[in-house]
Amino acid sequence: MEKIFSLKDIQEYVQTIFAQEQFIAAPEALYIPIDYTLRLGGKRIRPVMLLAACQMFGGQVPQARNAAIGIEVFHNFTLIHDDLMDASPLRRGKETVYRKWNANTAILSGDAMLIMAYQYLLKQQGLSAADSINCFNRMANEVMQGQQYDINFEQRTDVSADEYLDMIYLKTAALFNGALRIGAMIGNASEHDLSQLFLFGKHLGLAFQIQDDLLDTYGNLVAFGKQPGQDIRDNKKTMLLITALNKANKEQKERLAFWLNKPSDTSDEKVRQVKVIYDSLDIEHDMETLINTHYIQAEKALDAINVSEPLRQPLRHLMQELLHRSN
Amino acid sequence: MEKIFSLKDIQEYVQTIFAQEQFIAAPEALYIPIDYTLRLGGKRIRPVMLLAACQMFGGQVPQARNAAIGIEVFHNFTLIHDDLMDASPLRRGKETVYRKWNANTAILSGDAMLIMAYQYLLKQQGLSAADSINCFNRMANEVMQGQQYDINFEQRTDVSADEYLDMIYLKTAALFNGALRIGAMIGNASEHDLSQLFLFGKHLGLAFQIQDDLLDTYGNLVAFGKQPGQDIRDNKKTMLLITALNKANKEQKERLAFWLNKPSDTSDEKVRQVKVIYDSLDIEHDMETLINTHYIQAEKALDAINVSEPLRQPLRHLMQELLHRSN
Repeated sequence: MEKIFSLKDIQEYVQTIFAQEQFIAAPEALYIPIDYTLRLGGKRIRPVMLLAACQMFGGQVPQARNAAIGIEVFHNFTLIHDDLMDASPLRRGKETVYRKWNANTAILSGDAMLIMAYQYLLKQQGLSAADSINCFNRMANEVMQGQQYDINFEQRTDVSADEYLDMIYLKTAALFNGALRIGAMIGNASEHDLSQLFLFGKHLGLAFQIQDDLLDTYGNLVAFGKQPGQDIRDNKKTMLLITALNKANKEQKERLAFWLNKPSDTSDEKVRQVKVIYDSLDIEHDMETLINTHYIQAEKALDAINVSEPLRQPLRHLMQELLHRSN
Repeated sequence: MEKIFSLKDIQEYVQTIFAQEQFIAAPEALYIPIDYTLRLGGKRIRPVMLLAACQMFGGQVPQARNAAIGIEVFHNFTLIHDDLMDASPLRRGKETVYRKWNANTAILSGDAMLIMAYQYLLKQQGLSAADSINCFNRMANEVMQGQQYDINFEQRTDVSADEYLDMIYLKTAALFNGALRIGAMIGNASEHDLSQLFLFGKHLGLAFQIQDDLLDTYGNLVAFGKQPGQDIRDNKKTMLLITALNKANKEQKERLAFWLNKPSDTSDEKVRQVKVIYDSLDIEHDMETLINTHYIQAEKALDAINVSEPLRQPLRHLMQELLHRSN
């Protein structure tokens, strides 16, 4: 009997992978920004999920190493391009690639990273290239679609909560589900278990993204590693804003509309004033309730997976960790 | 015995594919720029090559349809991102994506296109997903590396002819070789033939890119569909410039250096003055000779492939067409 990895074991294993893996090749100008991004650290949630899912269904954690790297490389590709598109100066407390180098570097190194993700996926043993790339393609497509809806929503003032949830499913939960599914396929999961795993990834992803939006407004610069209030500056249609617009009285609606009509700028006044309205509507508490609802549904799906508790624990503990995160 | 497709048949078949294929899905804002780009037309050299290579080794042309679409989608992804990085206003006589929409659209739709290319590749029957994606990954990586070297060279004044040829191998010939190899694998080519095919693609790609550089400076806006002189404006280290720097006397070198030190701008004066120097050094004629040398080597490799002449003809005719192109 092989040792069962705890969440902490898996997280340490992932840290070791990224400490050891060599990402730089010639020409260095292409790969140094990739290496920089992959060494910024972060929670490595997606590779941890992938490895935990692999183990849960009977695989060994180190067996899914290449797919785990591939999924993190893909995620970091999206960050490089998103930070450029959103003009975000900071990521994990450090300069973003387009700021440290330039826009063209962010574009081209990002592209090379997307290809690199496919290379790692293809190196993965234990599932067919067709199954692996097919799952990866669907996931990658959904992430692009989610990003596009997010952009579309910036121009609209009538985004519904359902539209928002569909968007963040694509933007965030689809990647969780891709990671979980690839891990589970390496571990040889049954169809029943894959469908429960899908529900787990979906609700965890939704909870995670709503929490991300909450942290973007109510987080702390040091812990969060990004400038708080960016979503408000960019008129992002977050669950906070959608809920506020639904709850607001006429006067509050007008004040929100006033600030939403201001062009994106870096003034802190807009952030402050919108937060005053959020606070008067108790939006922070509403979001915590909503996040908790999705965490409960994720946990229910996890419990319905037909495996022994020790094998389920890493994902359960990961979920608990995410619920209490401050970044 | 199935009908052998001539070059013209293959070209018409490719036109039909792109006229019929549906590229738009939801959200439309993501896919309309993709559809726009794929319908700009162009010579469709790479899918034609792929299909011709498939037929040359015993496959049927329509059999390789999905891979042919995939390779053209990949090529057009590189165009969307390159046009943004190079700030090129026109492509095939029409506005480039970042100009018609904006930079973020060019980034995100380009990314979605790269993923779409993998989707088409994966749909291709007649070769394993592992072989197909592996070949595609190598090719895609080489194209990114070539683009990076091209950017690196903009900051240097000492690029040698060999370095330049290595760069355009990656930037242009690698994609020709990827198309040819995927087609040949679908057609089940032998290892000997694959190595001759590699030489064919390499020399054809080098000839093609040098000719592209020549057309960039000496082409005509209407036929070429792009603003001539862009390479000179951007200080691109083309074979024209490298040869000119090698041949120039002290006074000509100084005049070239003077113009190279001017920052990139849209002034026509820089283009005019550099062309005067090129003309005095007979650079256009040198390039024609060099292009011809590579075409001869490409033809030699094509002749060494162990197939009947009618099967070889589409690639021979394509080569001849490319040699006499004005765009």
